[in-house]
Amino acid sequence: MITDVEAASAVAVAALRESAPQPLRWAVIGYGFIGRRHVASLDQATGGHVVAVCDISEERLAEAREAKPGIATYSSVAQLLEEASFDAAVVATPNRSHAEIVIAAARAGKHVLCEKPAALNVAELDAMLAAVNESGVRFTVHQQRRLDKDFCTVKATIAAGSLGSIYTIQSSMYGYNGRMHDWHVYADEGGGMLYDWGVHMIDQALDLVDADLVSVWAELRNVINDEVDDYYKILLSFANDVVVELELGTYFLADREGWFDRHWFVGGSTGSLHVDGFDAVGEITRTTALLENVSHDQDKSAASYGPTRSFGVPRPGLIVTEPLPEVNVNHSEFYSDLLNSWAEGRDSRVKADEVRRVLAVMEAARESSRTRMAIDCSHIYKEVLR
Amino acid sequence: MITDVEAASAVAVAALRESAPQPLRWAVIGYGFIGRRHVASLDQATGGHVVAVCDISEERLAEAREAKPGIATYSSVAQLLEEASFDAAVVATPNRSHAEIVIAAARAGKHVLCEKPAALNVAELDAMLAAVNESGVRFTVHQQRRLDKDFCTVKATIAAGSLGSIYTIQSSMYGYNGRMHDWHVYADEGGGMLYDWGVHMIDQALDLVDADLVSVWAELRNVINDEVDDYYKILLSFANDVVVELELGTYFLADREGWFDRHWFVGGSTGSLHVDGFDAVGEITRTTALLENVSHDQDKSAASYGPTRSFGVPRPGLIVTEPLPEVNVNHSEFYSDLLNSWAEGRDSRVKADEVRRVLAVMEAARESSRTRMAIDCSHIYKEVLR
Repeated sequence: MITDVEAASAVAVAALRESAPQPLRWAVIGYGFIGRRHVASLDQATGGHVVAVCDISEERLAEAREAKPGIATYSSVAQLLEEASFDAAVVATPNRSHAEIVIAAARAGKHVLCEKPAALNVAELDAMLAAVNESGVRFTVHQQRRLDKDFCTVKATIAAGSLGSIYTIQSSMYGYNGRMHDWHVYADEGGGMLYDWGVHMIDQALDLVDADLVSVWAELRNVINDEVDDYYKILLSFANDVVVELELGTYFLADREGWFDRHWFVGGSTGSLHVDGFDAVGEITRTTALLENVSHDQDKSAASYGPTRSFGVPRPGLIVTEPLPEVNVNHSEFYSDLLNSWAEGRDSRVKADEVRRVLAVMEAARESSRTRMAIDCSHIYKEVLR
Repeated sequence: MITDVEAASAVAVAALRESAPQPLRWAVIGYGFIGRRHVASLDQATGGHVVAVCDISEERLAEAREAKPGIATYSSVAQLLEEASFDAAVVATPNRSHAEIVIAAARAGKHVLCEKPAALNVAELDAMLAAVNESGVRFTVHQQRRLDKDFCTVKATIAAGSLGSIYTIQSSMYGYNGRMHDWHVYADEGGGMLYDWGVHMIDQALDLVDADLVSVWAELRNVINDEVDDYYKILLSFANDVVVELELGTYFLADREGWFDRHWFVGGSTGSLHVDGFDAVGEITRTTALLENVSHDQDKSAASYGPTRSFGVPRPGLIVTEPLPEVNVNHSEFYSDLLNSWAEGRDSRVKADEVRRVLAVMEAARESSRTRMAIDCSHIYKEVLR
């Protein structure tokens, strides 16, 4: 007897095999801020093969039809899965609903690209992955910020090795809004900045450092928002002695140009790296000399720098800079990689195990913030990574 | 039978009682970078009552005689204590030797002002305090950075309450020297930046936050120096939910004006505070509005800010600043407070218990860095604070 799941799975595999010459047909579930971007991006990548949109709001469905005449629109996931002809779904609904929708789509034989965070916790993801694996469909998560220019510039600079032994990697972003957008202000929708941006910063950190994670220290705060975290600091200590520090605040203010943006600092034994903004402006900074252990006479003159000998204004020529490496990346690569990988019968860039590890780190961060202690994360590598 | 200690103690008490009209006579032990400053500062505060200097270097003693003709000079502490007539000693030798010299001076009935860190660990300090208490002399430590203008400005702004609920206090300093000065490069002299500057930053943090310390997370690194730490990050979590973050690096570079200096950021629920430099330049920053939860149409226009809705360039008028409170402080207050307090028969600004607590936090920081985990510090308040 062929079960529904087996039948759906056979259809999915057949669709993949046939998809090399013929693009997958896509449905986008959730036509909010990010769902609209998926429609545009996938249409561009596939030559217009987004065939359906699903949303609980009739107003938004009307907007979808206006934006793309002829697109099929559905107001329930069940109806979409039952009636529409398509091969792959984007799940771009509020975070709370990802698990239920991904499981339903997978069981209907649809490949799934899910928005981040894929799930609210590891247990939810495991249920989703069970459905995905049982159905034989492909699954990935929209961690497109692995293709952000700032991140890729930092990664390329570190990989080039010219910073020497790295002691700190600091990744931050500051905002002025205070409150978050739309459903992100509600805890029961899976709101908050750890889910919204922390998932990206942690994913980038784990992609950046090629070593086991030893421990997580984190502080999450509701500074402006009643229900959800809008400030976090997360310290990830890796087995190669690198510490990655992540910080984001939606009410973290300065009257300084370029402040409300993305920032990176990397400290190494032979140079420091600054990368600012999504456009990756910055430089590598070095010194032309280190302190020679000075005599007391020299000390006395050095003291004229200011109230301490070790700091102050460096003498001219001591500080030198080098340009950042040229990095060309584009978020469209996320979609082209996904479509090519699936057409060739393999997983795309963002692997389920990696997604699972990020969720495990987020759970550790919440536990650390609750207990005010660091969380031993060796289990994340020993048990979560399969 | 009157012991030597009791006799010395009686002399010390008598000297204190007589000292209101007549300043204490001082000896400065260790005529290096900071010892010279103590001579100048104490001479200014007491009207020239530094009567003796002790150093192992004959060259430095000659410099002392040249700087202050008529000053008595000694090449050993034992000889100084045996031969010189004075009431109070400054101990400004390398960190490793503080304990031995303080104990000897106290047993000789001398009041003691000791350089920071008073000791290399709590056990050493306890031995010193035992000698101090047994001899009935006064003891304090040169934590003069409680009088730094930057610190006092931060403290005054927080105390005024206009930042709302504080979520982060970040205190940092960056350098370009790489290596440290003189004996500070040697581990067995008590070198390294945790002992040199960490002791100040921790002392300031504990002075700033009026709540029990819950935990300490720290990373100490030898980035450039072979033997000693020249980078640290320390996170102090307090029971009132404030986290104080301390960071210092001697090779933490940027080609930016004012970078190699002292920096503070304080984030609160109604404003952010920046204070830069020992001269305390900065401002309080606020917004004139927080995000109203916007509709999707507004989202689309907001998205033109950049690749994310929550960040980017704020609209004109949204960010406003206020000047810092005016704070007038001077390191000379450290000496005048000390002399006045001792003359009036009470302890001066920097109490032994506070010094002990800072050393305990430094021990916790080393243990945290070694284990890569946070250290539960409730014991520091329950056991170390007496």
